[in-house]
Amino acid sequence: MKTTENAIFPKGEKNEIPYFTGTSYLHMLISNDKDFDCVVGNVTFEKKCRNNWHSHPGGQILLVTAGEGYYQEKGKPIRLIKVGDVVEIKPDVIHWHGATPTSEMTHIAINTKASLGLVVWGDAVTDKEYNSYKN
Amino acid sequence: MKTTENAIFPKGEKNEIPYFTGTSYLHMLISNDKDFDCVVGNVTFEKKCRNNWHSHPGGQILLVTAGEGYYQEKGKPIRLIKVGDVVEIKPDVIHWHGATPTSEMTHIAINTKASLGLVVWGDAVTDKEYNSYKN
Repeated sequence: MKTTENAIFPKGEKNEIPYFTGTSYLHMLISNDKDFDCVVGNVTFEKKCRNNWHSHPGGQILLVTAGEGYYQEKGKPIRLIKVGDVVEIKPDVIHWHGATPTSEMTHIAINTKASLGLVVWGDAVTDKEYNSYKN
Repeated sequence: MKTTENAIFPKGEKNEIPYFTGTSYLHMLISNDKDFDCVVGNVTFEKKCRNNWHSHPGGQILLVTAGEGYYQEKGKPIRLIKVGDVVEIKPDVIHWHGATPTSEMTHIAINTKASLGLVVWGDAVTDKEYNSYKN
């Protein structure tokens, strides 16, 4: 199992946002700020953890800093993501992300154009959806 | 000497921007994109390397991912920065950043509100300025 042992930024507190399945941690790096119009956080997903289907009115960029995870856009297959990967999530694209069943995953999340809105949450990702990854 | 051995993102090509003293490397993670209005790059400074005095019309956020470096705003003392540190550079604040004399330094640089302008370059940082760090 790969772990987040090389994580660079603090793991932070247990994430209490009710739109996650499983356990995750959140450490804010940049809070909402009019000068930058960006919000930056470090998110760690324990294995099997994922967030609900959701979208970002202003878009989001993920920079994977440790472990391996999943990223899926609505209507497309799950994409395996790992250390060093960059994920570009365009505004209003419905998607989810999380750890794999066997590895934690940590990413920096940059919410761009934050003034347009940070996130619109949808339904939880079912086990059937989560387990649909094909190598 | 601390090195960038734990760097996560590719080191990239030798940086040919003529506003640096010493050797640096640049790997773009997100190029200028209207949807995000951000530019994201991974920059590695070899020891002693620094960029010129400069400012960002739209601001910049630095996320230090390896090594130790210097950050200085005009009129203030040099600040030592290291792995896990976040530097908030407000729009139009004149500053420079780079490695220390004894350590490489790698940071992710997020240019925010890129449409306002990425960078305005000024004079090189003199050896006297670079060597003014007080522990």
